[in-house]
Amino acid sequence: MNFDSLWQSIIDVGREPATGGYRRFAWNTADLTLREWFTAEAQRRGMTVEEDRNGNTWAWWMPDGWSGDPKDAFVTGSHLDSVPDGGAFDGPLGVVSALHAVDILRERGVQPVIPVAVVAFADEEGARFGVACVGSQLSTGALSAERALRLRDNDGTTLAEALRAVGRNPEHLGADDTLTDRVGVYVELHVEQGRALEDLGRPVAVASSIWPHGRWHLTFNGEANHAGTTRLVDRRDPMLPFASAVHAARIEAARHDSVSTFGKVRVSPNGANAIPSRVDAWLDARAADEATLASVVDAIRDAASRYAKDGHISMDFEAESITPIVSFPDAPRLRLQQALSRFGDVPVLPTAAGHDAGILSAKVPTAMMFVRNPTGVSHSPEEYAEIADCRTGAEALADVMAEWVSP
Amino acid sequence: MNFDSLWQSIIDVGREPATGGYRRFAWNTADLTLREWFTAEAQRRGMTVEEDRNGNTWAWWMPDGWSGDPKDAFVTGSHLDSVPDGGAFDGPLGVVSALHAVDILRERGVQPVIPVAVVAFADEEGARFGVACVGSQLSTGALSAERALRLRDNDGTTLAEALRAVGRNPEHLGADDTLTDRVGVYVELHVEQGRALEDLGRPVAVASSIWPHGRWHLTFNGEANHAGTTRLVDRRDPMLPFASAVHAARIEAARHDSVSTFGKVRVSPNGANAIPSRVDAWLDARAADEATLASVVDAIRDAASRYAKDGHISMDFEAESITPIVSFPDAPRLRLQQALSRFGDVPVLPTAAGHDAGILSAKVPTAMMFVRNPTGVSHSPEEYAEIADCRTGAEALADVMAEWVSP
Repeated sequence: MNFDSLWQSIIDVGREPATGGYRRFAWNTADLTLREWFTAEAQRRGMTVEEDRNGNTWAWWMPDGWSGDPKDAFVTGSHLDSVPDGGAFDGPLGVVSALHAVDILRERGVQPVIPVAVVAFADEEGARFGVACVGSQLSTGALSAERALRLRDNDGTTLAEALRAVGRNPEHLGADDTLTDRVGVYVELHVEQGRALEDLGRPVAVASSIWPHGRWHLTFNGEANHAGTTRLVDRRDPMLPFASAVHAARIEAARHDSVSTFGKVRVSPNGANAIPSRVDAWLDARAADEATLASVVDAIRDAASRYAKDGHISMDFEAESITPIVSFPDAPRLRLQQALSRFGDVPVLPTAAGHDAGILSAKVPTAMMFVRNPTGVSHSPEEYAEIADCRTGAEALADVMAEWVSP
Repeated sequence: MNFDSLWQSIIDVGREPATGGYRRFAWNTADLTLREWFTAEAQRRGMTVEEDRNGNTWAWWMPDGWSGDPKDAFVTGSHLDSVPDGGAFDGPLGVVSALHAVDILRERGVQPVIPVAVVAFADEEGARFGVACVGSQLSTGALSAERALRLRDNDGTTLAEALRAVGRNPEHLGADDTLTDRVGVYVELHVEQGRALEDLGRPVAVASSIWPHGRWHLTFNGEANHAGTTRLVDRRDPMLPFASAVHAARIEAARHDSVSTFGKVRVSPNGANAIPSRVDAWLDARAADEATLASVVDAIRDAASRYAKDGHISMDFEAESITPIVSFPDAPRLRLQQALSRFGDVPVLPTAAGHDAGILSAKVPTAMMFVRNPTGVSHSPEEYAEIADCRTGAEALADVMAEWVSP
């Protein structure tokens, strides 16, 4: 199957007609459809498919005559889930490119001498349960099964309940001890989430590092009351310090040459004629190094706390996840650059986006490749890459795979 | 049945265990349960129950020997729905007190010489479909059936669909031409939504006026993008001008000695790692007179518009409802004060809360009574009145009813 057909075969799955964005969330109908699609496509290629204890799906292409468990495999892939109303490329491009790279190697007559796997990691975006990279974090032990199973979605459903509802056993969750033995290297291809390649006029890049980043949950507790009859002086309105925190986040991010965002807010009771009792808000912050990130977040917390106190509002500020800087190791990156020499001088770029490759790098060698994004827009229905660049990316990944797995 | 038993008979309907607040929204299960309760209680008193074309429920106590349609009736009541996580008293206190006043008149052996009705108006709070006083606004013609039927709840269900789902015919909606003939006066008893009676040391008051008030829907349209990889200068984040609008609303309200509130917010797509594409927010504003209200709202709109423009965000600012000042007429108010003479010198208070009595006052004479609220809290699970004051309120309402309907 050519790249375009493979790409088109999932283009409608989980797409919301009203927005054009994708709603592929952990274990929802769209996610299950994509899991079936992945399994069918891998099996069509003669690969052996297994879902690991944490819901990550692995498709294996074993060398002729190999017996026993896979070891030191070349693994590539990404994820199939999306942010709310996300784009088509973030995640699926890496999975489709990996399957297509297998096709290219087959066409070239390459017989791998080490195991090859294409992997689709579970719940990378964390759109439903609020924690990102759940599948890879569980497997590496960065996230405990106990904490994961207690995560709740907006309807109050726990991850444990959601797993049971789709026939998975939540008791299986936990660190995957086979990971370090099985994975020799993990190479993740991803659409670029910025405009650096567009500015450089190049179709593909390799990654140098992932900015340290994290997610903080702020809770502002005030007092619900009538929006008409409660005098201003009698109010304890949590919307006011929340609004101040939004400004503080922008100011501190600019001051520290970093980024911060309030993208998710929940207001209770959320009635137009009631002063809110509570505002929950989530801060996403990222910076070039860990000291800067800590400074930004401390400054935002101090400002928000001061505004809350001024308004007689109690505030909680809890880290939901903090991911340290990931510097991708030199050896696999250099090997990627050599394998990609026919694409000229391949740029090396840092990224501020988290990825399963970043999580896995704590346990196994990892590397990343980026495909040009002409607008830089991501996590949006407008996310875009030219199909020609996507084909180039898949061919580049095939070159890397061929270099790695050939005799 | 004594007041306490009647009051207790609905105390658990639609109460959310997690918050202790009520979720009695137009045509939901709790609302239907309360409609059945109201019908049963009225029928137990020998009253004739009818639901009008707009979902308002009327229970009639007709004079002996009356034939034909009711005319120039003494009507009292309130509503049974709540704001999200609202209190027990706002609305139901007026309905329970009205039913209990009928009991008191029966015990006193009063035979009315004019028709008496207890009414429960539909969807006073507007919690589900966003517009307040839907039942009374439809009946007076202040809200058109066409507009009402297109209103949508948070799940996208229209009022027309919601009505059909509970066996009502949406085609019946519209102005009720019988209203002015049937209603001689409408007297609404309501829990006070402020602390004036507590400060005065009095159990009941009558209303002088309702502040002009309204609800405005602000839409900030930006551009969804990745929260990590999008540089600050490349962002069009609608959360920032929304936050500025929150501050502007408070500043302008304070400057004009009025109140304004952002109690309801909807963020799209509402993902922690995505810059929002859009923020919808609802402004509730009220002031002592219409000119002041217009000044406050204009100032908030100008400020929000300026902040939106600075952030390259497009903004819409749409009035969803604007209710002019209601000055309750002198005649029924003076008659109330005289009927209440045994309670001493009854205070006369304005209120900043909207009520069906305010809507009806455009068509028929109306008056209101307030029962002391020791904390002043309303639209909250903490809303409260002493049971002794509630009993006093119902007795006061019975005195008014007796004075009006006796020979």
